[in-house]
Amino acid sequence: MAHVSIIGNGNMGQAISGIVTASGNTVEVLGHGDTKPVTGDIVILAVPYPAVSDVIAKRADQLAGKVVVDITNPLNFETFDELVVPADSSAAHGIADALPTAKVVKAFNTNFAATLAATTVGDQPTTVLIAGDDADAKALLTDIVTAAGLRAIDAGALKRARELESLAFLQIGLAAGQKVSWAGGFAVVA
Amino acid sequence: MAHVSIIGNGNMGQAISGIVTASGNTVEVLGHGDTKPVTGDIVILAVPYPAVSDVIAKRADQLAGKVVVDITNPLNFETFDELVVPADSSAAHGIADALPTAKVVKAFNTNFAATLAATTVGDQPTTVLIAGDDADAKALLTDIVTAAGLRAIDAGALKRARELESLAFLQIGLAAGQKVSWAGGFAVVA
Repeated sequence: MAHVSIIGNGNMGQAISGIVTASGNTVEVLGHGDTKPVTGDIVILAVPYPAVSDVIAKRADQLAGKVVVDITNPLNFETFDELVVPADSSAAHGIADALPTAKVVKAFNTNFAATLAATTVGDQPTTVLIAGDDADAKALLTDIVTAAGLRAIDAGALKRARELESLAFLQIGLAAGQKVSWAGGFAVVA
Repeated sequence: MAHVSIIGNGNMGQAISGIVTASGNTVEVLGHGDTKPVTGDIVILAVPYPAVSDVIAKRADQLAGKVVVDITNPLNFETFDELVVPADSSAAHGIADALPTAKVVKAFNTNFAATLAATTVGDQPTTVLIAGDDADAKALLTDIVTAAGLRAIDAGALKRARELESLAFLQIGLAAGQKVSWAGGFAVVA
């Protein structure tokens, strides 16, 4: 049994909370401004990218040593035309640098909230692409995702977060431009 | 009626040739080493990325002013662990820089050859993501793709080639690691 803390109660935080519950594990959802310490073995940062630095500043001690899941997409949401992290880096790398003892995993950033709730994208099961350097952390998250009826694919080391963020940037741009719906996007066909 | 030249007769060149034929347009396929001048209004560079510079060196005059379609993925194919273009650039940008009067379009790089031939990925129509700065060039290619029964989506300006190459890098890595099949990968759900 895993206990999961989710920081952020927006549509992604709520959708991921539903997945954890469906998986038979326990979850607590904290608002961004909530000051209660996290109690989970896994902590999911489900706040918008610009809020991550504030969460880390306030909770670095609590996050030390834990599995920390970064779901963010560091877009320039004014232009939808660029990522705001350096081209050779990623939001996940910034978080790993800021939390050197945490086991940082990138996941869920390529999934629209509606597809997490529906557990399907088109006719395919919703697939969570997971990148990280700690195999146990990835396995723990994989177990939760698959127990909830979604698919999980190990996308490789944390450095692949760069490509996961690029994919999501593209997907968000297509949805914002009404080329795909927010309930569609990229499905993974095995 | 468009006339299309494809340079490269590997599995991608053959699959794209099939699409052009199915669309009711005309096509010539030239091997990489072929010295015959291209006659198409559209020229598709269907050679591996390392061969592109040689093609451009030999055919820059012929490609001037034309619609040039870059389908390449500039992977390090020894490690499958990095792109060999600068992180803030793309193969397409390099080609556009080398062919300043050509109308360079990025397309087909996110499609596996088998999905172009099948016209489906899973239960979805195969979708060709097209990026470029010339709207007429993108429209011309879109007409060919859609007339062949595939879908096309305008993914934006040529700068989006960077994300298209990242997506394809991820997809190739997943297939090489047997996480998806070479007949699967990312389907686009509208």
